[in-house]
Amino acid sequence: VPSRSRRGRNGVVTLTTDIGWAYAAQMKAVLLSARPDLRVIDLAHDLPAHQIREAAFVLRAMAGGFPPGSVHVAVVDPGVGGPRAPLVLETPDGSALVGPDNGILAPLAELLGGARAFRIDLRRLGARPRVGTTFDGRDVFAPAAARLAAGAAGRELGVPSRFRGLDLPAPSIRRDGVGGEVVHVDRFGNLITNIPSGRLPAQVRSVDLRVGTRPSRTVPRATSYLGLGRLRLGILGSSFGTVEVAVGEGNAAERLGVGAGVPIRLRWRRRRSNDK
Amino acid sequence: VPSRSRRGRNGVVTLTTDIGWAYAAQMKAVLLSARPDLRVIDLAHDLPAHQIREAAFVLRAMAGGFPPGSVHVAVVDPGVGGPRAPLVLETPDGSALVGPDNGILAPLAELLGGARAFRIDLRRLGARPRVGTTFDGRDVFAPAAARLAAGAAGRELGVPSRFRGLDLPAPSIRRDGVGGEVVHVDRFGNLITNIPSGRLPAQVRSVDLRVGTRPSRTVPRATSYLGLGRLRLGILGSSFGTVEVAVGEGNAAERLGVGAGVPIRLRWRRRRSNDK
Amino acid sequence: VPSRSRRGRNGVVTLTTDIGWAYAAQMKAVLLSARPDLRVIDLAHDLPAHQIREAAFVLRAMAGGFPPGSVHVAVVDPGVGGPRAPLVLETPDGSALVGPDNGILAPLAELLGGARAFRIDLRRLGARPRVGTTFDGRDVFAPAAARLAAGAAGRELGVPSRFRGLDLPAPSIRRDGVGGEVVHVDRFGNLITNIPSGRLPAQVRSVDLRVGTRPSRTVPRATSYLGLGRLRLGILGSSFGTVEVAVGEGNAAERLGVGAGVPIRLRWRRRRSNDK
Repeated sequence: VPSRSRRGRNGVVTLTTDIGWAYAAQMKAVLLSARPDLRVIDLAHDLPAHQIREAAFVLRAMAGGFPPGSVHVAVVDPGVGGPRAPLVLETPDGSALVGPDNGILAPLAELLGGARAFRIDLRRLGARPRVGTTFDGRDVFAPAAARLAAGAAGRELGVPSRFRGLDLPAPSIRRDGVGGEVVHVDRFGNLITNIPSGRLPAQVRSVDLRVGTRPSRTVPRATSYLGLGRLRLGILGSSFGTVEVAVGEGNAAERLGVGAGVPIRLRWRRRRSNDK
Repeated sequence: VPSRSRRGRNGVVTLTTDIGWAYAAQMKAVLLSARPDLRVIDLAHDLPAHQIREAAFVLRAMAGGFPPGSVHVAVVDPGVGGPRAPLVLETPDGSALVGPDNGILAPLAELLGGARAFRIDLRRLGARPRVGTTFDGRDVFAPAAARLAAGAAGRELGVPSRFRGLDLPAPSIRRDGVGGEVVHVDRFGNLITNIPSGRLPAQVRSVDLRVGTRPSRTVPRATSYLGLGRLRLGILGSSFGTVEVAVGEGNAAERLGVGAGVPIRLRWRRRRSNDK
Repeated sequence: VPSRSRRGRNGVVTLTTDIGWAYAAQMKAVLLSARPDLRVIDLAHDLPAHQIREAAFVLRAMAGGFPPGSVHVAVVDPGVGGPRAPLVLETPDGSALVGPDNGILAPLAELLGGARAFRIDLRRLGARPRVGTTFDGRDVFAPAAARLAAGAAGRELGVPSRFRGLDLPAPSIRRDGVGGEVVHVDRFGNLITNIPSGRLPAQVRSVDLRVGTRPSRTVPRATSYLGLGRLRLGILGSSFGTVEVAVGEGNAAERLGVGAGVPIRLRWRRRRSNDK
């Protein structure tokens, strides 16, 4: 483990991509060639291809808990080779984020307290010449991450820059419910929404659930998958702090035939003494 | 690498789950935030969802060979949020196992020489407050593993407890054969059974194989996939020390349409001088 | 991190396999039991089963960029248990390659400057007795890699040997074009060919593309996926330095129904002043 560098980096470099293991391996080669003592941590290489918003949501949840001083590289980059800038973001805790300026880094940067951005200048990287323009993960982001993990400042790698924000979808609050959408589908087919679990009053035990254009149905609100009951559809609090739609021991995405981006609406009866 | 701690831990924490990479990444964040010098080793995150017995079998084979003093975390946990306890098991070699009390840890513990169990007391973890009750891997097991890897004893994290055993299925020995079942399907579709390879007399070169309710057929016993012959069904000794059903350069699970849990019966002709 | 050993190894052991995570985990157990301070790096465990040529191509691209003194283990080994030898190759940069003598190591060895080969002698490994003959990755290659990473020389593990070459397919150059084949399909379904990007004259902006036995069609040559346009088929320079066939934001392998091994032919109009 490298000693804590002058910029407070901790030697950890995380990788989050949609490019699969074989391409990610080439990034590891660059990282370890530059700095053999880096600790490269695979977060995910199987993110849905080209889905920037879903990746941004998952990246925030994965990398947000890492220790200060980590370097996080994100490669979901359908615009590679185009005009979008290669970025370094520096956050107040001494962490650095590296990736394309397509919004993928923005929610994580916000979680970590905001960021100063630098547009990577390839001439400053000392990187091997680019083979092509299809894999900045290897040719630009990995060499930049190695430099950052070794203590370089963002301003050593590029020039101050603005960066593109990405507003994860916000739920819409209504008098008798809340509307949102599916922002991530996990390995079990659970539909993770953007609706904060705290939006549902504690006493609500069932809701009218509408998924996409399907007819609304009344489903239970459970506190665990077990509590849902086998193959029963319902909602519960996800580990992202938001509502999820799940099927007990089953796959909600398959059952409902939906995925990320689909609208979700929850309604419930308000408990009032004068309700009829 | 951390120096060997007072309890003989070696700084290695392995992760075995059915939750996929993105959730497992959140466990890594907790581990490295607690102890930046831990060596986190991914064993598997693609185990079949909710299949505790298969996971227990694979976990034993994977983690059983790790050096003494490792900490092994297992998260195949369909009962999360329910009454099943979160456990630490301590084995005589200085290793520690962490996971739900659903039997997943039991075969590994037995292999390592037995275990003393402790029910994790969340108040002793110093963990961040639980976001929900759907992800004890991150909220309970990872912080416990970090403490253990740093040298904490099980009794510092919880109270002595019984733990649930899990008897992996045992083969039934008969005069002219043996019955068992498929306990794991590997990436190639090979059907790994619970029948010890040593049960077959050395001179047996072919067997009557019955898989599930399919008609019995005579198949060769080979000593390698190559020896089976291309696309030919047969049996051989698996790397788990048990019999496997395989197809040369093919996929037995797909060919036969079966998976873990399916009964297997092998019969062979006894070689006797007075056989007619 | 181990100090640089007497043979210039750097403590890094990479794993490239088609066996899946659960089997690869058993290799990690052997490696870390032998040498707890090794840095085991997963390159890929999801390579197409038994496809030696594709694995050799990908291995070269992944491992070729690692720092000198790394040990690279490759397990795509359909001939396990048969007569093919277990090999160690030593390259001039102090790296060592470990795997079966089926050609998988040859292109990487050539890239690294050639190799001296040794046939591993199991008696010299000090390995645990082999459970069977189905998993040399765990029983032979992992213990050999641990010894090599600790500084052992190939001659300490076996006897000098020849090794099997593997000629990756070479493109055929024609007056008005070039013929080659798909050597790898990446996670996005891009068809990576063996045709060097430099073969196409810089001014060529579109080509007649023939894939397998499908009718030829004129497609654009782009410099980025973005430049292809959404769902449009075309070619561009891959990150392997060769031509790839891709679909903008889409999956070329699915669209065309082809995979590795399929012939590719590109033709273009030569820009000559006397062309009619």
